[in-house]
Amino acid sequence: MTGNVLVSHEVIKALQWRYATKKFDSTQKIPSPLWQTLEETLRLTPTSFGLQPYRFVVVTDPNVKQQLVPVAWNQQQVVDCSHLVIFARLKDMNVGYIDHYLEEIAKTRKVAVESLQPFREMMTGYLERTEPEDLANWMSAQCYIALGNLMTAASLLQIDNCPMEGFQNEGVDRILQLPERGCQSVVMCALGYRAADDKYQRLAKVRFPANELFIKI
Amino acid sequence: MTGNVLVSHEVIKALQWRYATKKFDSTQKIPSPLWQTLEETLRLTPTSFGLQPYRFVVVTDPNVKQQLVPVAWNQQQVVDCSHLVIFARLKDMNVGYIDHYLEEIAKTRKVAVESLQPFREMMTGYLERTEPEDLANWMSAQCYIALGNLMTAASLLQIDNCPMEGFQNEGVDRILQLPERGCQSVVMCALGYRAADDKYQRLAKVRFPANELFIKI
Repeated sequence: MTGNVLVSHEVIKALQWRYATKKFDSTQKIPSPLWQTLEETLRLTPTSFGLQPYRFVVVTDPNVKQQLVPVAWNQQQVVDCSHLVIFARLKDMNVGYIDHYLEEIAKTRKVAVESLQPFREMMTGYLERTEPEDLANWMSAQCYIALGNLMTAASLLQIDNCPMEGFQNEGVDRILQLPERGCQSVVMCALGYRAADDKYQRLAKVRFPANELFIKI
Repeated sequence: MTGNVLVSHEVIKALQWRYATKKFDSTQKIPSPLWQTLEETLRLTPTSFGLQPYRFVVVTDPNVKQQLVPVAWNQQQVVDCSHLVIFARLKDMNVGYIDHYLEEIAKTRKVAVESLQPFREMMTGYLERTEPEDLANWMSAQCYIALGNLMTAASLLQIDNCPMEGFQNEGVDRILQLPERGCQSVVMCALGYRAADDKYQRLAKVRFPANELFIKI
């Protein structure tokens, strides 16, 4: 319990410390061991059925970052951050992908793939009864779980982060050649270290009071 | 840096420890101070524009939990968990809500609400140019950020968790009277402590290898 009280304190402190960084210090890069932690954090994200229907596109090439600026509302974070992650959902969810996933399970757990038939039917059943647009939204939603997981982990590591929506998805997809890679952009997150003169870091955090956000039953 | 190496280790350990708990020990409840941490974690979730377009419905009443079982694929986690959180997006996003949010900002940051006019225009502009269905999906997506944040924080506190999708949203909304409260269910998460005989805790975690999930540019 003592350990948990300490962890509680660290989690809340990290989330209080965090803010949507508007200006990164472009000279500071995330050290490799910490970046490895964030990659592993992303990889371990929980998803629906465990299907991981996404790709994490990590951009560090300065030229490519520069190309992304005009399709990202000219937000300079895209260039100045250390690592830019684009969360991209798969273009298609299909039986082939489900079978590929089942093979991964069979390999990891050392079981026969045939033993996973009931789970296969659960997933293919979901596929069959769900409209393509709803499937797309469902895959996009999984990207947001990963985003939430990433921002919390990064903040615990004192790595600044700024989620970005509302960019020009088609432009981003074209520059990063995502359709050719079987996926399309959903949301982004710039990560790195805040510039000393980013005034937003000094603004008080705004959240509705708990009694407005929570309904207790 | 030493501190960060320790934190890295803790984050990865927590995410490795975590699994989608299928059977909770119904006799174990989350201690109040730890639950308070999770509520604050949820409250601090980053969202688009900071708008927090959701409500967190926390169900602990055993009778209400029991009522939810048939509309949640008869999953017993709903009853056996300590706390069940339903992430519910707002039914409507409108100018009134935006103004309410701006008042909260003005109050917290001790600025005149008029000084926030450019930010107001950014948000109302988004509202005007976005189709109702896309607005609904966008609000739902914010719920998933909160879900990702919650599962990571809970796992760090060694609190088991199980996200649940695909329940009967209308049934859940009816039982919890969500329409009357201005919101509707998106996704759920059961939290508590794993039963000693939940066999799923002993299965190896399945994730695709990093070289499949990541695209480095």
